[in-house]
Amino acid sequence: MIIWINGELMDERDARIAPNDRGFLLGDGLFETLLARQGRIAFLDAHVVRLAAGGNILGIPLPASTRHLGVACGMLLEANGLTKSARTALRITVTRGPGPRGLLPPAKPNPTLMITASESPQPAPSQSAVLATTRRNALSPVSRLKALPYLDNLLAREEARSRGADEALMLDTSGHLACASVANIFLWEGDKLVTPAEECGILPGVTRAAVIELAERLKISVTEDMIAPQRIALADGAFLTNSLIGLMPLSRIERRDVPMHRLTGRLQAAYELLLEADEEESDA
Amino acid sequence: MIIWINGELMDERDARIAPNDRGFLLGDGLFETLLARQGRIAFLDAHVVRLAAGGNILGIPLPASTRHLGVACGMLLEANGLTKSARTALRITVTRGPGPRGLLPPAKPNPTLMITASESPQPAPSQSAVLATTRRNALSPVSRLKALPYLDNLLAREEARSRGADEALMLDTSGHLACASVANIFLWEGDKLVTPAEECGILPGVTRAAVIELAERLKISVTEDMIAPQRIALADGAFLTNSLIGLMPLSRIERRDVPMHRLTGRLQAAYELLLEADEEESDA
Repeated sequence: MIIWINGELMDERDARIAPNDRGFLLGDGLFETLLARQGRIAFLDAHVVRLAAGGNILGIPLPASTRHLGVACGMLLEANGLTKSARTALRITVTRGPGPRGLLPPAKPNPTLMITASESPQPAPSQSAVLATTRRNALSPVSRLKALPYLDNLLAREEARSRGADEALMLDTSGHLACASVANIFLWEGDKLVTPAEECGILPGVTRAAVIELAERLKISVTEDMIAPQRIALADGAFLTNSLIGLMPLSRIERRDVPMHRLTGRLQAAYELLLEADEEESDA
Repeated sequence: MIIWINGELMDERDARIAPNDRGFLLGDGLFETLLARQGRIAFLDAHVVRLAAGGNILGIPLPASTRHLGVACGMLLEANGLTKSARTALRITVTRGPGPRGLLPPAKPNPTLMITASESPQPAPSQSAVLATTRRNALSPVSRLKALPYLDNLLAREEARSRGADEALMLDTSGHLACASVANIFLWEGDKLVTPAEECGILPGVTRAAVIELAERLKISVTEDMIAPQRIALADGAFLTNSLIGLMPLSRIERRDVPMHRLTGRLQAAYELLLEADEEESDA
């Protein structure tokens, strides 16, 4: 596999992360996961905007412009023979780079930029989920960043796997529904959508934002809310969102079969059109 | 600088962390910071026990025994000409090692073990602290592990620096005092000590445990408690603990000068004796 690292394409086996990279030592960095279909990258701008915003909060300057990142991703897909691949997952990782011992960052960071690409299987038509015990920290700005530290979510996901489920639903530290281990969540209440508000320790997902916009265009009411867990059991439908799975219906939560809501399919179709339009734009 | 990596001593500039190391990609790993004085490592056993316990919780098998780690640390000190150094900070990092894309760990992890050593300056006689807004997640097992993700604490520490203080005191997500960004905390209430209980999102520090034991030996009452932040302002003294600073008096918290409690010096002296005894034992 060829990867992009600090401005160069190279074989992953030859690529090196420095042992004193703060991404490695402290989780001091950010990442983005993007979907490319036939070499066309979906929502590149939105991902780069989020990455830069996170970098602003952490004080990590983004070492490349959107255009530059787009070109790098394109070269990487080409180098890996993935320009015709139906589905490729791209991961852009930015860390604060190497630093001396201790927590305090160097005054002039020299960020590490890494991009990797790998084929991404077609997702299953639906997933099951259980409620995890590990919570999202709503009282840290990190919960709203796509930051490297993923151990809380990893433990939640392991808990789900041990209970035979595909995904883990996580509450935030104040007891409201937050998200799944790698996705945002939407619930149907009648024909209205609710999704956890940003203050509930959630990453503001790119697909989440797209779904909110699409729903509004389709005159479907969407509320960003503090959602008590009891509402999960009463939901008339539910789906997860992220860049790789798009809109993923939840068919089962804990021991309850969740109905497939008739409007989920409509949103999925609208999202597919939006993806295609964005991909065409990225060609232009 | 020479570092120890996966069984080999090598120049840091030649050492390589794989780009798909889960420690780098997800913060999926643990570490320990140890103090060596004149080549003698303090509390090696206690640190390795904690590392192994954390590995058990995360499912990361420790790739070396205590004896093996002690030998590796010794070789590393020697290779860096630090066997006569007054104070060296050793850091042992263990990650789950390389893995495929995604959150779920490989069935058979191949952990990465890295040890680094660097001279550690004599700490200042006291520190100042302010209360940070970023909280410790008491509702995740990760808060009780010395895990790689340190972004919450890093943000707290940055907040302290921006307010002119040495350290950040962090509350947990339920509003009780937890710890500082790289240390545990003890408060004096009269001649009694209180320290946040383990359920308050704290790392159970090796020095913290030693201080609790010493205090008990000296007939000083110590309570592990849920500490409301109001109690900080009323404390008759306060100190931080970690392996590098030992017992570090807090001379100022927010705008208040904190008195130096007469028993802090007694505990510091007892801790110094304990350190020396442990170091002699490690020679044997």
